[in-house]
Amino acid sequence: MKYLKNTWYVAAWAHEVSGDQLLSRTLLNVAVVIFRRSDGSPAVVADSCPHRFAPLHLGRIVGDNIECGYHGLQFDGDGNCVHNPHGAGVIPKGCSIAAFPAVEKHGVLWIWPGDKERADPQLIPDFSYLVEPGRKTVFGKRHMKAHFELITDNLMDASHTQFVHKDLLGSDAFARSRHEVIQEAEAVHSNYVFPDSEIPEAYKAYFDDPTLRVDYSVNFRWLAPALVRNSVSLIPLGKTAAEGILRTGTHLMTPETELTSHYFFCHTRNFKLDDEAVDERIRWWQKTGLAEQDGPMIEAVQKNMGIADLDSLNPVLFSIDSAAVRVRRLHAKMIADEEKDSTARVIPIAAKADHP
Amino acid sequence: MKYLKNTWYVAAWAHEVSGDQLLSRTLLNVAVVIFRRSDGSPAVVADSCPHRFAPLHLGRIVGDNIECGYHGLQFDGDGNCVHNPHGAGVIPKGCSIAAFPAVEKHGVLWIWPGDKERADPQLIPDFSYLVEPGRKTVFGKRHMKAHFELITDNLMDASHTQFVHKDLLGSDAFARSRHEVIQEAEAVHSNYVFPDSEIPEAYKAYFDDPTLRVDYSVNFRWLAPALVRNSVSLIPLGKTAAEGILRTGTHLMTPETELTSHYFFCHTRNFKLDDEAVDERIRWWQKTGLAEQDGPMIEAVQKNMGIADLDSLNPVLFSIDSAAVRVRRLHAKMIADEEKDSTARVIPIAAKADHP
Amino acid sequence: MKYLKNTWYVAAWAHEVSGDQLLSRTLLNVAVVIFRRSDGSPAVVADSCPHRFAPLHLGRIVGDNIECGYHGLQFDGDGNCVHNPHGAGVIPKGCSIAAFPAVEKHGVLWIWPGDKERADPQLIPDFSYLVEPGRKTVFGKRHMKAHFELITDNLMDASHTQFVHKDLLGSDAFARSRHEVIQEAEAVHSNYVFPDSEIPEAYKAYFDDPTLRVDYSVNFRWLAPALVRNSVSLIPLGKTAAEGILRTGTHLMTPETELTSHYFFCHTRNFKLDDEAVDERIRWWQKTGLAEQDGPMIEAVQKNMGIADLDSLNPVLFSIDSAAVRVRRLHAKMIADEEKDSTARVIPIAAKADHP
Repeated sequence: MKYLKNTWYVAAWAHEVSGDQLLSRTLLNVAVVIFRRSDGSPAVVADSCPHRFAPLHLGRIVGDNIECGYHGLQFDGDGNCVHNPHGAGVIPKGCSIAAFPAVEKHGVLWIWPGDKERADPQLIPDFSYLVEPGRKTVFGKRHMKAHFELITDNLMDASHTQFVHKDLLGSDAFARSRHEVIQEAEAVHSNYVFPDSEIPEAYKAYFDDPTLRVDYSVNFRWLAPALVRNSVSLIPLGKTAAEGILRTGTHLMTPETELTSHYFFCHTRNFKLDDEAVDERIRWWQKTGLAEQDGPMIEAVQKNMGIADLDSLNPVLFSIDSAAVRVRRLHAKMIADEEKDSTARVIPIAAKADHP
Repeated sequence: MKYLKNTWYVAAWAHEVSGDQLLSRTLLNVAVVIFRRSDGSPAVVADSCPHRFAPLHLGRIVGDNIECGYHGLQFDGDGNCVHNPHGAGVIPKGCSIAAFPAVEKHGVLWIWPGDKERADPQLIPDFSYLVEPGRKTVFGKRHMKAHFELITDNLMDASHTQFVHKDLLGSDAFARSRHEVIQEAEAVHSNYVFPDSEIPEAYKAYFDDPTLRVDYSVNFRWLAPALVRNSVSLIPLGKTAAEGILRTGTHLMTPETELTSHYFFCHTRNFKLDDEAVDERIRWWQKTGLAEQDGPMIEAVQKNMGIADLDSLNPVLFSIDSAAVRVRRLHAKMIADEEKDSTARVIPIAAKADHP
Repeated sequence: MKYLKNTWYVAAWAHEVSGDQLLSRTLLNVAVVIFRRSDGSPAVVADSCPHRFAPLHLGRIVGDNIECGYHGLQFDGDGNCVHNPHGAGVIPKGCSIAAFPAVEKHGVLWIWPGDKERADPQLIPDFSYLVEPGRKTVFGKRHMKAHFELITDNLMDASHTQFVHKDLLGSDAFARSRHEVIQEAEAVHSNYVFPDSEIPEAYKAYFDDPTLRVDYSVNFRWLAPALVRNSVSLIPLGKTAAEGILRTGTHLMTPETELTSHYFFCHTRNFKLDDEAVDERIRWWQKTGLAEQDGPMIEAVQKNMGIADLDSLNPVLFSIDSAAVRVRRLHAKMIADEEKDSTARVIPIAAKADHP
């Protein structure tokens, strides 16, 4: 499995692992167990004891360590065997397991699959808006039987919203919509404007008057390896941005295996922060739009593609694919650069000023 | 997957596809979607958009075309992309999908996997008796986890009826039964006579006096690729054929994949046309005899054979196999002839006079 | 699949096959059907008719023979075709199926996969204690998605009891426990002593006073290919063995395929023979301790190991592995000896004197 190594990937939402919980998950083709040390710091180690290959997630946390449920060997969060409860307690040399550098930041548990000494948390792109005051974020996740780049493709080509999500995101301004693709050194933007549009069904509940006409724009920003921010704004005609709605979707993909992925998504808003009904409506969108509409479509595409990669199937490309194609090319170049020169810097850092 | 190409295969019963319905099915190892144009004519196209490989059966019919549910591209029944709803609507050259010539005839939707210019509906064997006045046909279908030739084998060697269907078709004349195999240029017949037999259980309900003694005959006719007609007659001793029962079973097999098949079956009668109870009894036979008795046995045979073909396993052959062996040889010869000379005529046409 | 051939394996508990029953099971990678002749003697033949490869377990017993359910051919318990019900009844030469020598002894149906002429029932190790008067045995079985040697490993390294079964078998004398491994020509013993121990939870119900302190010992004896006897004794401090509890577990493993096994287990006691509540408690242990605790752990280990064999994964070995390692080496040597000299004697016979 080929993937960018010296970059941060999402292992889990921070809230997925708490207390004494052991979370078993396959990330980048490695079965791992995720847990927290007594100080709360995250640890991500291989889910296989080097003695008899029992999965460690069948064990338990003892202090800062994870104890194997089969024979009681204990390992610290860096993967070193630190306790043998049998006989004289001898620990053979080299008794250890793989471990990923792991960091919690902005509500996310991140792991670094590359050179450990280069695992700098400063290289994690700025997603502080997920947890900063004055905003509210609703989190979700879906397991996907699809290569993670197919999910990125789906996001960067938002023209699909007019078909896959026609009932929820369809706009009568679709035929007049404009699409702009901007490529930066480390990012690709795919921006859509639907001028003088009806309010799409999924957003009507956020307006007192759902019959208003709005300028509707939908912007996507991709950062490596598969971190996509989606900013949606709906501004009533003749009004200022402050009088409209801004909702930011965040879509973070991590390969599970060659053909399966973890799809982490969440939606952040700057309005009605304490309104449970809005939370509920966002969860409904995550379930309906992402899990039930995008999910099956992307998985069906993967099933049709079998184990082939996209290029080898010679897809007929259209203008709508321009952003997704640029992302694939930039991502492939980053991987190639890294293979040529392992110190190549491939981590795009989103400047704070770039906040939605 | 090796199969006869220049011949008609069954894609579906005609009644399986109606109105706006999109039927997804794999035929001859190709995932297709079957639909009807606005004039009702059938279309069978690959179930995969050439843009992003979304299955077209997740889309919808728009006029005579099928619209992809992912990005809205439209294809006609011949597989050509005819509409791009995005931007300037440009359709790239070569934007098309595979399509099979398809025809509805005698209640069956037929497809032709070979040279398109040779797809002559006149070459479809005459199954008009399925839908002609004065007869009533009850239709059924079973998916089979077995190579389609194992189903043909099962039909052509009716000696299995005395074991697999002993409770329903067992005859006390079994030991006196005679078997005749007739090979024609394009057909194989396997004919059984059980003289002076009890009425087998499955047929008792059709007689006022179920204790009658009958001459019981069961004839099978195979046509390529796997079209089997089965004529059963039960004539009370000393009576004329007109005083007996004639029931015709039709068994049409189409490969789904190398080791799975579509088994289309139906039963046609010339008596009690409007009697729902007889319909029900035939459905019960299709469920019990075909789906629950033949089906599991044939699938168990396939499971035991694994992925090997029959010859490679050196089966011990008996006299009862003579018809099935002839079918396999004739079928193999037709495929070999076609490979040598693609214009070889391999389509047997059943003459009208041959009607049951 | 590499395994010891000239030895007896367990095909089934004797009570699993009775009357007209046909038991289909895969043993040593061969799908077989197990049945009894009219005199009750067991027969184990390949579950595949040589005519059309129908599974014989879909047929029925006729006298001493098994009749194929597809076309009625009959085979005796040695695998010879003895009846063809069709036409002149000719049976082609070589019409036969594989058969294993099979014997019922001590409540067990044994099969011999090696040279038939060497299949001497005297070579079956003495398990007469399973069925002798003055004892009561409760039988069980679990299918395991694991190589059979992983089950042997689990038994021979009883240190796992203090973790996998901590709630049921945990002893406060664990840290003081002693482990002795004894290797004989044909057997390996793994013996544990927990001096001055609490009564482990699983055994408390057998004592009037569950707070007694006991000398707790747990002994395992392995015989090829995977026949393990486990003797547990709990003797109140200062009392004689006769005043304590002796319970004998018997664990017999037979490969189903390379990575799956049949795990036959039973527990024999010499006390409260007619007490249904004790039977029930033993069944509860078999369900909880073996099926729900050992079972998932061993299967999880196999899953983590994938299709690799243990050595190729370079496990970090500890002192607790000494018995299991000796068993693996002795077993491997027996297989190697047999490959060099097919007459090598590899069958360990447990002397009657060795009875628990």
